Amino acid sequence: MHVVIIGGVAAGMSTASKLKRLDESIKITVFEKGTDVSYGACGLPYFLSDLIQEEKSLIARTVEKFKSQGIDVYINHEVIALDETKNTVKVVNNAINKTFDVAYDKLVIATGAHAIRLPVDNHTLKGIYTLNSLEDGRRLKKALQDKKNQRIAIIGGGYIGLEVAENLLIMEKEIIVIEREERLLTKFAPFISDQIKKTLQKNHIQIYLEETVKGYEGKGNVSKVVTDKAAYDVDLVIEAVGIKPNTEFLKDTTIKRLKNGAIITNENMETNIDNIYAAGDCVSYYHRQLKTYDAFVPLGTHANKAGRVIAEQIAGDKRQFDGVLGSTVLKVCDLEIARTGISETEAIAHNIPYDKVKITAKDRAGYYPDATPIEIELIYHTENCQLLGAEMLGNKGVAHRINTVAVALASELTAQEYSDIDFAYAPPFSPVYDPLQVATNQIKCIKKKEGINHEK
Amino acid sequence: MHVVIIGGVAAGMSTASKLKRLDESIKITVFEKGTDVSYGACGLPYFLSDLIQEEKSLIARTVEKFKSQGIDVYINHEVIALDETKNTVKVVNNAINKTFDVAYDKLVIATGAHAIRLPVDNHTLKGIYTLNSLEDGRRLKKALQDKKNQRIAIIGGGYIGLEVAENLLIMEKEIIVIEREERLLTKFAPFISDQIKKTLQKNHIQIYLEETVKGYEGKGNVSKVVTDKAAYDVDLVIEAVGIKPNTEFLKDTTIKRLKNGAIITNENMETNIDNIYAAGDCVSYYHRQLKTYDAFVPLGTHANKAGRVIAEQIAGDKRQFDGVLGSTVLKVCDLEIARTGISETEAIAHNIPYDKVKITAKDRAGYYPDATPIEIELIYHTENCQLLGAEMLGNKGVAHRINTVAVALASELTAQEYSDIDFAYAPPFSPVYDPLQVATNQIKCIKKKEGINHEK
Repeated sequence: MHVVIIGGVAAGMSTASKLKRLDESIKITVFEKGTDVSYGACGLPYFLSDLIQEEKSLIARTVEKFKSQGIDVYINHEVIALDETKNTVKVVNNAINKTFDVAYDKLVIATGAHAIRLPVDNHTLKGIYTLNSLEDGRRLKKALQDKKNQRIAIIGGGYIGLEVAENLLIMEKEIIVIEREERLLTKFAPFISDQIKKTLQKNHIQIYLEETVKGYEGKGNVSKVVTDKAAYDVDLVIEAVGIKPNTEFLKDTTIKRLKNGAIITNENMETNIDNIYAAGDCVSYYHRQLKTYDAFVPLGTHANKAGRVIAEQIAGDKRQFDGVLGSTVLKVCDLEIARTGISETEAIAHNIPYDKVKITAKDRAGYYPDATPIEIELIYHTENCQLLGAEMLGNKGVAHRINTVAVALASELTAQEYSDIDFAYAPPFSPVYDPLQVATNQIKCIKKKEGINHEK
Repeated sequence: MHVVIIGGVAAGMSTASKLKRLDESIKITVFEKGTDVSYGACGLPYFLSDLIQEEKSLIARTVEKFKSQGIDVYINHEVIALDETKNTVKVVNNAINKTFDVAYDKLVIATGAHAIRLPVDNHTLKGIYTLNSLEDGRRLKKALQDKKNQRIAIIGGGYIGLEVAENLLIMEKEIIVIEREERLLTKFAPFISDQIKKTLQKNHIQIYLEETVKGYEGKGNVSKVVTDKAAYDVDLVIEAVGIKPNTEFLKDTTIKRLKNGAIITNENMETNIDNIYAAGDCVSYYHRQLKTYDAFVPLGTHANKAGRVIAEQIAGDKRQFDGVLGSTVLKVCDLEIARTGISETEAIAHNIPYDKVKITAKDRAGYYPDATPIEIELIYHTENCQLLGAEMLGNKGVAHRINTVAVALASELTAQEYSDIDFAYAPPFSPVYDPLQVATNQIKCIKKKEGINHEK
């Protein structure tokens, strides 16, 4: 059997590695358009500031390592077309500009995504960067290390933009963030957007909301960002306005995609075409709460998990991908922000009867040194009282706590069931009621559980 | 209705507060033997070292506060007998040595426990302390503040003993720990005991295992601890060898108790006698995995939760106590140690077919600064592949992670179901696979789940 994998980063290489471990006899060929494979793209913001100094720290495994495991990896090889009726892909070796066809028995599309560039005036000026690939990171880091590049505009107040902002602070840059929506981090609840804004402003980052970039000005290099409201002098621009799946090469195929180009997959990570799988930033996932197939949640965790599912499916195991919950965590300066499950916006969009509670509680026993508040908003189903989602913000103790809710959502627990779980407690780590249980205790819609009535 | 509550600390006052909120019309009388109510006993080790300076920080609510809420609290009032046929208790006002009977409609026994004293030679010497009540803490703190008391022996290497040891280090005492078993923290797995021992020794604490204290020597004050193997010069002794439920006053009643005196309760926190409830350190709880009623797990979390269940039961709600999982977390110097669920010892004792995996993984992305290892041992049911328990040790990121397993145990998840959950991830907080998912991914007994087969 010949398995062809298009793309050599998280999803592609997870598939390749796992599949080789499961069945050494399978021939695996990986075509990677760029020069880098198997790197941790989530570390890129920290690479900029030298929190992560060495590029090689980000690389999980080298091409040589994969080759030594019997996986054929070709870098600089771009797949430009698929013929799903003949089971072949058309590959260009960009190093020597040579095109050839390759036949597959199973195809794995793991082409990832690319950063969206704003199609605005003078967008071809130099000094405008994005941060999606390791190659992007390398170029941007070099530019930021140039002391002349002091005034930095970040376009986009999503999580990549804010992680970059945090790292530019470490580099002592002057930073402005321009966001076209009315708040930062629009995928989070408004109370989180507000706190983040305050924290960034406290750190002397200028925030401009509800401003749309119309274009750039400059001679050769960008020197000004022009919005619908103002113009800002800058030395360098980082656009962080989202990503688009690398699936343009599928435009003449029958593979089903979302409007943004993301390939629609099922629980087996199969596309709608037999023997063609897909995973990573180029796909939409099954959402386990909404029970929809259009969740575009391009995160490294899903790429890795879904990649392994493909390997197990190809190797004959029926293991499935359980779907996403929308879990996210983010560090911005001294804040930890996290969410999981359905947001209020999603509940409304999907006509889910919901209500919410909002509490603030200390991260540890109030009497223990350095206790700090955690703000929590929970939303729950008003008919069956199941938890639907949680959003949290605090200085400490947020990042791992959110995952207790992720497990609860995966298990479809009610608020009361969650409240009653025996959480580990000691004063340095938690109040006697964990903050999340303080929150679930507030939920008044208590669905009576069927009596436990164990034999006594 | 008249509800009489015996005991004014965690369980008793949780019942009282919650019940008053649920039904203001109910008359509530609390008899507390000592002088303190509603304090956080778990904070006592940190009170010794002045990490928590003020005694009042430990007190959640004062007697006056409870009285202002309409709860009649009597301190220095000891209940010395119960007549369950007449629905009365016999109370002594120890301040004036007056005895009287009180009738109840519902009785709540929340008398807690007391520290066990070793019945060894010269145990009545001065300078031998325990740490269970606030009164204990007050006396011990005063003694420790005396610079003459420099060489301290802690008898017992359980979690109270070790939390005290950590705080004595802060006070720059010379510390020895004597434990009769072959390892510290016998309720944890051996790999944890070993690491704890190394950490304490690195901090210049002398550890003596498999030594049984035979007696003390001294003139007036203790000056020597004599074991079956050696003798140690000391200025002060802290016995931390366990606690015993304060249920001696029930000896002439028909209330069922364990051998150690703990009152057996059901999911409603009822005793075997109608209208008599019990909660806190004086009871045994339902264990939700073992489905037994003899779990003596005297922790503040259970006291609080069970106290509220009693209030809801009395107020007519059928909310139950879901039972304990044995979740525990502990800080010892720079280590976080945690466990939940069934230990290997318990699995063997209950004839549960189990196997285990042991892994080490970083607490955050390996490339992010200050990543430190977490050791994890998971045990799982070999027939249905459900998770049974977890034990973890590391410098960071242990305390809250353990609760994701607690939720999984409460939800009876298999290893695979846990592996597939969408955990929030960012490099400062976790590797792309959470350490616990690294562990569950190792579990080879993959029970095939029924296909999800959602409509596409």
